[in-house]
Amino acid sequence: MDEFAVKPNPDDARLTEAVAGIDQDGNPVETRVVVERPLTLFLNGQEIVTMMTIGDHPKYLGVGYLINQNMLRLDDEITAVDYDDDIETVVVRTGAKTNFEEKLKKKTLTSGCAQGTAFGDLMERFDEIRLPQDAVLRTSWLYSLAKKINTAPSLYLTAGAIHGCVLCEEDRPLIYLEDVGRHNAIDKIAGYMAMEGVSSAGKIFYTTGRLTSEMVIKTVQMGIPILISRSGFTAWGVELARKAGLTLIGRARGKRFIALSGEDRILFDADGEAVEHEPKAAARKGAIEKGAI
Amino acid sequence: MDEFAVKPNPDDARLTEAVAGIDQDGNPVETRVVVERPLTLFLNGQEIVTMMTIGDHPKYLGVGYLINQNMLRLDDEITAVDYDDDIETVVVRTGAKTNFEEKLKKKTLTSGCAQGTAFGDLMERFDEIRLPQDAVLRTSWLYSLAKKINTAPSLYLTAGAIHGCVLCEEDRPLIYLEDVGRHNAIDKIAGYMAMEGVSSAGKIFYTTGRLTSEMVIKTVQMGIPILISRSGFTAWGVELARKAGLTLIGRARGKRFIALSGEDRILFDADGEAVEHEPKAAARKGAIEKGAI
Repeated sequence: MDEFAVKPNPDDARLTEAVAGIDQDGNPVETRVVVERPLTLFLNGQEIVTMMTIGDHPKYLGVGYLINQNMLRLDDEITAVDYDDDIETVVVRTGAKTNFEEKLKKKTLTSGCAQGTAFGDLMERFDEIRLPQDAVLRTSWLYSLAKKINTAPSLYLTAGAIHGCVLCEEDRPLIYLEDVGRHNAIDKIAGYMAMEGVSSAGKIFYTTGRLTSEMVIKTVQMGIPILISRSGFTAWGVELARKAGLTLIGRARGKRFIALSGEDRILFDADGEAVEHEPKAAARKGAIEKGAI
Repeated sequence: MDEFAVKPNPDDARLTEAVAGIDQDGNPVETRVVVERPLTLFLNGQEIVTMMTIGDHPKYLGVGYLINQNMLRLDDEITAVDYDDDIETVVVRTGAKTNFEEKLKKKTLTSGCAQGTAFGDLMERFDEIRLPQDAVLRTSWLYSLAKKINTAPSLYLTAGAIHGCVLCEEDRPLIYLEDVGRHNAIDKIAGYMAMEGVSSAGKIFYTTGRLTSEMVIKTVQMGIPILISRSGFTAWGVELARKAGLTLIGRARGKRFIALSGEDRILFDADGEAVEHEPKAAARKGAIEKGAI
């Protein structure tokens, strides 16, 4: 795949809105803000969830959500994915009724949401996944990826308040997608990989968001052995990463980073002194006045 | 109330964990990360949701969640709030069956989660709320609040990867609570206000998180007319704030900020030139290597 084969489109007028306000001196300003709209997802006849999304890739989001929630398995044959803009709905259709739908039928009313049913299975599957041991992350790739991603045109740079996830290979960012929630961004990448036949072999995952249990589970489920973030860790995220043997790198800013799991995949080939401190303009947080928190 | 009557307790050993790893030079490091644990919430006999939380104030979180989701109304008499540490469960009990539980009984299996039932009512109630017009925000208060909050000891400064919400009055932060999700932090404050009898009159709300629709709805529901964030906006958040007449201030860093709704409540009494640029050490994002995104 080419570098940035899929990337943010900050010029898409449907994704941001110009809004007028005032600044700290009381002067009028106009600024751009990201749009969030509801998207209701159906699996065949079953309503699954309504998500808030920027709405740029509803089909990838729908399929990726089902895969990452373990509601759709790789052996389920997808016969159609229908998106209806008017009623903000995406319907994923399969050849046969899915195992998830069968289980749902057996559930009683009192046991709550559909989400719970899938979660037990999800953790069972998580325990079975073996990530490739021979994967490598060169620190020179890490620095190069961070620089390319943070300087690429994006909704983040245009409007702020958004997360980015990037599927990478060696030092090349391949698929860069953004959304209001980091989970939507990773789900869109999972959907893209499933629908366009992109393998997880040799891939590295980069996110701007925190390394929570949810992000770790999804990355492991997608079969990707290395997860990098600018942001921090949670204890459960670290615990799950260690259990799965995922290489987990956080607080990656400028030349700094911390690895809390799977450190043996890291190859220290970069000359730390030669890596620039992160320039202010490329810092996603801090001096600039936009923030995706 | 006193300044910081409620505040983060970074020394509470249950809230963070020491984890060993390596840094960018391959040297061993030990760092602290926040803990997230499940908390299952019941309203009387009805299981409502399982949340991931740092777990410091389960009772406030449970009550606040129910109030902010409109599952509990202010005229529902709470007879007991029971927290069981072993099974990570909080049960909120009311004198009479709540309106929400009555409605749930009528629902059919196919219409999905309990969450949906409450949401329609929530938006209906949102439209009816009138925020006090005479509330004022002096810019000198805003700068003073930001400085006090960002330099106060917190889990954020100790471990990163966490959000903070603060109930304030004039230039005084009163209740400062943190959690892995910004919605938990605001729910804990709503629960505290309900259980300890703190009124919303004259209050200002400060959050480190993005100004999404969810944060705007909750702030309006709590009857607070002014919402300030370090972080950015979403279009729907701005739209709802304008509809409710909420003063919405974002990207508040150092002397900068942008107001996109309810600008007329702002009184420009601070000498902009006298306000320091945010010192690097107080910046929540950027140069420091911890990030709550």
